[in-house]
Amino acid sequence: MTELGRLYGLGIGPGDPELLTLKAHRILTTVPVIAYPISENGKALARAIVSDFIRPDQIEISMSLPFDVKRSPHPYYDIAATKIAEHLKVGTDVAVLCEGEPMLYGSFMYLFQRLSRQFPTEIVPGISSIMASAAMLGVPITYRNDVLSIIPATLDETTLSDRLAVVDAAVIIKLGRHFTKVRRVINRLGLLHRALYIERATQSNQRIVDITEVKQVDVPYWSLILIPSQMEMGRWGDGEMGRWRDGEMGRSRKIW
Amino acid sequence: MTELGRLYGLGIGPGDPELLTLKAHRILTTVPVIAYPISENGKALARAIVSDFIRPDQIEISMSLPFDVKRSPHPYYDIAATKIAEHLKVGTDVAVLCEGEPMLYGSFMYLFQRLSRQFPTEIVPGISSIMASAAMLGVPITYRNDVLSIIPATLDETTLSDRLAVVDAAVIIKLGRHFTKVRRVINRLGLLHRALYIERATQSNQRIVDITEVKQVDVPYWSLILIPSQMEMGRWGDGEMGRWRDGEMGRSRKIW
Repeated sequence: MTELGRLYGLGIGPGDPELLTLKAHRILTTVPVIAYPISENGKALARAIVSDFIRPDQIEISMSLPFDVKRSPHPYYDIAATKIAEHLKVGTDVAVLCEGEPMLYGSFMYLFQRLSRQFPTEIVPGISSIMASAAMLGVPITYRNDVLSIIPATLDETTLSDRLAVVDAAVIIKLGRHFTKVRRVINRLGLLHRALYIERATQSNQRIVDITEVKQVDVPYWSLILIPSQMEMGRWGDGEMGRWRDGEMGRSRKIW
Repeated sequence: MTELGRLYGLGIGPGDPELLTLKAHRILTTVPVIAYPISENGKALARAIVSDFIRPDQIEISMSLPFDVKRSPHPYYDIAATKIAEHLKVGTDVAVLCEGEPMLYGSFMYLFQRLSRQFPTEIVPGISSIMASAAMLGVPITYRNDVLSIIPATLDETTLSDRLAVVDAAVIIKLGRHFTKVRRVINRLGLLHRALYIERATQSNQRIVDITEVKQVDVPYWSLILIPSQMEMGRWGDGEMGRWRDGEMGRSRKIW
């Protein structure tokens, strides 16, 4: 009986190829088959991130996925899973390239659900764009007892507002056409002065703009708003006080 | 005038040395000075993670930090910042090793606040133990429109309950002596059957146990509970239904 191939869900990080882990790099450069999503207009961002590491003798599977949310992606994932399974069945390992972190809002999960029961499966965690954004903005997200919520901008206005009202720090992801709605909610909750905007963190076309200057028409899906924690002050009653300063990013930030 | 040295907040991931990024590895192996926390009993986990990469000619700064939460860490960070600044002032780069991700509940932030105004500072994001835990447990955290909350177990019981009541997925961190309280809250909210427990994800002494078998006395600070999303079903009315199965980790998981 042939041994089955191993399926890797390979987190490749947010865009900078140097943010691959040593493990992801090792697997990527030694696995015989790689698979990645390709959009209807032929773009393959995950492949582009790691293109310098791919060898000509590696087999590539491009998975067509619809970006139109009104269409079910399930038939597309069925096709992709079948293609991948053909290699796994004959003992060939396959690495699926996943932007950011595979287990966090990742499309890999649809393949995981289809394949991980039949084939040995290993997830290699990657740097999430959420974490990378904080590094690029140069601002700590959370301290000590803070609650952090990661909130998709796709939620309706009331739910967004309810969720944002109770958090110490938040990251609002998948902005795109929802930007104006999100900014309205943030403004109403008195959070606008804390909100930081970033697009395509660590990619070559990364953009950081003051949130008050962002125009809805320019906002891509791969953008987010970070509302960092307001530092917990005076915990030990040692008289240290927070104060505001102009940060390097043109924003005021609370620091010691 | 001497050029100033650069301060790196170097995310080194949750424990597996192979989960360093290529960038963190490059900086770690070329920087002249590294700094890391050391506990009162002489343990230096961050250094241990990367010990195979450290060269004998690198200068090491070990930063003593109190683990007793009743004592202010500020004097200790003042001392550490002064030591680090001595190198930066004369143009020598310094990398501070940060377990996991520097900007997420990281002690690096206290150094960032003390040094980033005077010295050029760069944050290198790392794999958070939160993300690594999902990979090790083999379970997706969030899908599509899910809200994910990261909640410290140190919160009081009422606040914990309020926060957990409204999330689609949650990670409860810093369990330690708060485990029994957290399990009580989870049980009361009817979430116990979804809760997964893991200690020291990706470290050599990683431990995954069914949450109903965990004893308070055994729970370290570096443990967490993951409550993964219940998959959003029937979005396209295509008749696919979730069902439960026994997962590889001895837990039931919801899958297609």
